[in-house]
Amino acid sequence: EKDENSVWSKPDMAKAFKPIVCIETWATYSSKEKDDEHDYVDRNDTQIRRFRTGAKGQPYWFLGYSFQIQLDRLGQDGYSSTKGSYGGIDVWNAYVTAKLLRKSDLLNLQAGYFWAATSRQFNTSPWAVSGFDKSRSCWYLRSFTTGKGNGIESGIGLGGVKNWKGFGINYRVGVYEPEAFACPDNSSRLVTGRLMFTIGDPEQSKYKYMLSGNQWRERKGITIAVGGSNLNDGCINESVYFKNAQTYGADIAIDYNGIRIDGEYYKMKRTSEELLDFTGTEMHVCVAYNVIVSNKFIEPSVTYDYFKGEGSSELFKHIGDDATWDLGVNWYLNKDRLKLAAHYLIQSGSAASRVGNYAGLALQFRL
Amino acid sequence: EKDENSVWSKPDMAKAFKPIVCIETWATYSSKEKDDEHDYVDRNDTQIRRFRTGAKGQPYWFLGYSFQIQLDRLGQDGYSSTKGSYGGIDVWNAYVTAKLLRKSDLLNLQAGYFWAATSRQFNTSPWAVSGFDKSRSCWYLRSFTTGKGNGIESGIGLGGVKNWKGFGINYRVGVYEPEAFACPDNSSRLVTGRLMFTIGDPEQSKYKYMLSGNQWRERKGITIAVGGSNLNDGCINESVYFKNAQTYGADIAIDYNGIRIDGEYYKMKRTSEELLDFTGTEMHVCVAYNVIVSNKFIEPSVTYDYFKGEGSSELFKHIGDDATWDLGVNWYLNKDRLKLAAHYLIQSGSAASRVGNYAGLALQFRL
Amino acid sequence: EKDENSVWSKPDMAKAFKPIVCIETWATYSSKEKDDEHDYVDRNDTQIRRFRTGAKGQPYWFLGYSFQIQLDRLGQDGYSSTKGSYGGIDVWNAYVTAKLLRKSDLLNLQAGYFWAATSRQFNTSPWAVSGFDKSRSCWYLRSFTTGKGNGIESGIGLGGVKNWKGFGINYRVGVYEPEAFACPDNSSRLVTGRLMFTIGDPEQSKYKYMLSGNQWRERKGITIAVGGSNLNDGCINESVYFKNAQTYGADIAIDYNGIRIDGEYYKMKRTSEELLDFTGTEMHVCVAYNVIVSNKFIEPSVTYDYFKGEGSSELFKHIGDDATWDLGVNWYLNKDRLKLAAHYLIQSGSAASRVGNYAGLALQFRL
Repeated sequence: EKDENSVWSKPDMAKAFKPIVCIETWATYSSKEKDDEHDYVDRNDTQIRRFRTGAKGQPYWFLGYSFQIQLDRLGQDGYSSTKGSYGGIDVWNAYVTAKLLRKSDLLNLQAGYFWAATSRQFNTSPWAVSGFDKSRSCWYLRSFTTGKGNGIESGIGLGGVKNWKGFGINYRVGVYEPEAFACPDNSSRLVTGRLMFTIGDPEQSKYKYMLSGNQWRERKGITIAVGGSNLNDGCINESVYFKNAQTYGADIAIDYNGIRIDGEYYKMKRTSEELLDFTGTEMHVCVAYNVIVSNKFIEPSVTYDYFKGEGSSELFKHIGDDATWDLGVNWYLNKDRLKLAAHYLIQSGSAASRVGNYAGLALQFRL
Repeated sequence: EKDENSVWSKPDMAKAFKPIVCIETWATYSSKEKDDEHDYVDRNDTQIRRFRTGAKGQPYWFLGYSFQIQLDRLGQDGYSSTKGSYGGIDVWNAYVTAKLLRKSDLLNLQAGYFWAATSRQFNTSPWAVSGFDKSRSCWYLRSFTTGKGNGIESGIGLGGVKNWKGFGINYRVGVYEPEAFACPDNSSRLVTGRLMFTIGDPEQSKYKYMLSGNQWRERKGITIAVGGSNLNDGCINESVYFKNAQTYGADIAIDYNGIRIDGEYYKMKRTSEELLDFTGTEMHVCVAYNVIVSNKFIEPSVTYDYFKGEGSSELFKHIGDDATWDLGVNWYLNKDRLKLAAHYLIQSGSAASRVGNYAGLALQFRL
Repeated sequence: EKDENSVWSKPDMAKAFKPIVCIETWATYSSKEKDDEHDYVDRNDTQIRRFRTGAKGQPYWFLGYSFQIQLDRLGQDGYSSTKGSYGGIDVWNAYVTAKLLRKSDLLNLQAGYFWAATSRQFNTSPWAVSGFDKSRSCWYLRSFTTGKGNGIESGIGLGGVKNWKGFGINYRVGVYEPEAFACPDNSSRLVTGRLMFTIGDPEQSKYKYMLSGNQWRERKGITIAVGGSNLNDGCINESVYFKNAQTYGADIAIDYNGIRIDGEYYKMKRTSEELLDFTGTEMHVCVAYNVIVSNKFIEPSVTYDYFKGEGSSELFKHIGDDATWDLGVNWYLNKDRLKLAAHYLIQSGSAASRVGNYAGLALQFRL
């Protein structure tokens, strides 16, 4: 609250700094991992799949901030089916959020380095999904949209939420300049948008950029959303320019008495100046059920996700398909702040350089 | 305060850890950017111009520390007139300060990784200047002195302040070993010094390494200073040795009823063993006026800075000139902790690889 | 303490986040530094030998975490006898510790990225040793065991402590997959173990992974320990596979009325598929005496450490010997949280690329 007699806005120091620490450790057993040339030996691996630290705060009623540093995939065996490798410490996200209306959550401005989110999975943190990991299919959508696997870029966005009795809307729009597509001779620009309609209980009562995931048997409601993005005049590298790249699709989330179903279906299209084309599709369906056993939440879940890319590999290098079945159970000791998970994942397809299966145990801890 | 009966010095844990979070986001429109080969397309860009996080503390009355990690230029479009690019997360500074006298601020020892500051601009944080950014001309001075753009190196220094009625002195001296100039066959050493005289109200009442900038209409005073540095027996690379590098100059700051004028003029000289020479000059003048409008501080400002380098590009690669006009207005919501700025910058000259103009909006936030 | 009526485990937020800041600054004078080709000029250097920041916490009675980011050797002159160089900011360690038994410290599970410790020095933090730095000889053991100089890898471990009157045991076992030895065609695995017996006062009253070092004249006791590791089917690079690598040895620590003696002796063996062999030995002895002078702890100390490597340099590239004498005195103002040290080190041998002597002053500060 401002002191009306002062020329200075007074910060609320009690809300100004909350440290962020999130650690997700995995122990996995990989099998049937192979690529075109090798069959890899089955193997165990331990890794810190996600390690994030940073801070967030709301020092002024009208201004908050959040940032995370990431050290993901620490200690990962690059020959295991979980793929990837540690890339050193780096920024994950960093942004400020200005609440433009004092008494409404309908207009919030975001500036900095944050998600260019369009789809439900894109807009959900890894801590909030029922699956063992975020879907592989959405990785392709994020990479296609921004040129980066996490879909985070520097930009400016607006977002808001408004709930009436039994109905609500929730939106995000953003403008970004992805570095991956910058060129000397063009000024490319990415525009994204996402619009959600909720029926029944709201999915968010207060605006937050990322969606909540599990509703802990409390929500009876459905959310239907559409999203998409457009980028003109980008370049992949010095010799490959493209006129236009678009994504669009729809998604849904249903919560009812502990049942939790969500899914999405998004298309990707890119056309070059020489009229080469890329067309891609990504989707997932997740069905989970939350039940209280011995005074703790247990959630069995099944997730299927699928990607397919067709056309010119100069425009997007992932041509072929990629499918994952994920069967598992989550045990929540303190919501998504302390969670144990045991899952089995079956991966297939030709788009990834290697595929393989794995059984995994995860401990997810957030401060 | 020490417990006299204990063998252990007791830390004051309440003062031992204060987190640092500083975020400066920019939205810019670049125009007329060009180099010898290209005219670049005019373009928008959003970026986090400065992102710093770390901590500081004063756990013992005689010992404090401070460190900052930087993630500057996050999401910057390298083809915009603001130039530069994100270089990953890295250390900014890290040092301990020992107060050597209990009842005086005249003798403070600093050890670690900190500024080898000589000039006023060198000794002022970017959060404290009236211009949109720190002057480009001072970048050349810092780079010339230490081989690093931020002028921060490992070293040991002394500094202090002493104020009498209507008069005061303030000094820093330091010894550093810049890595950029280290060689197997020589042991080079950088010595720096800076001495300030204040007339009227003091500029600093308590010793802090960096200067304060805006005095919020409270100071009526003038500060005159001289500074300089010397480095013997350095090397630029394996084949270019130099006998001697020196910088020296003077600067001034005037505060009077909201008027704020500061300027500096520094020379750089380097002579190689083969008697090649480099001579450089850098200066800036900034005029600003602080006025309270609708209960908030508004500061229109004009800054001009200029660099000129002559002689051998083997000794310092920036030969030619570089000039910037900066016209803008700053709106302080909570001193330099929450600031909005709108400026227009005109850059010209031959020393930089590219020049161009830009209009910029900045939001500066510090915890 | 859990709320028995809630489905959620409640975190203790007061214990959930303690920031870590550790800074060790050095000023050194190097002499007689040389390698096969050069005699280096004697030189001064200032550096931040160790800079670590991060956090630890115990949000649940059964679960704690700790992580550190490192920026070691900041500003180091690579031509000084202290060798090494700044390698940028990176993770040091990151792990969670689960206390498996509520009323006993005998069973603690550790998961994440932590030490694969076998010997006493390996299991002691640099803040806790009497010498100016950790022993160079133990660097070889850590590097041999894990392929990394700090001996920290992703893994899972168990550890515990149990003390009876006048006798105690203390152990750690761990399973790791060192990335340095991973190969497509093998699934290598490192198993480590360490078992300590204490007679007299216990060395640890409560389980902590790392050992305590100085006992501040309070302990009368002796600890004898054995440790070792085994790794099968690893590879150094694509063409050098090894069947087996082992380490084993013993160590001792004696504390009596301020006298502090510790030492270790460990062997390393590695055998390739082509029956090439490497055999190494590393040891150290440290004698120190803690005395209270003018109400502060003063500790003169002498340390000697030695490494010898014989056999195939394809299996471990450090062939030859490496010996260091360290004579010095430590002045503890607040245990190992605030310490000044002045030491002289004499290095000799053929295993390191360069050797030289140095006199050093250190200021060690930990929050």
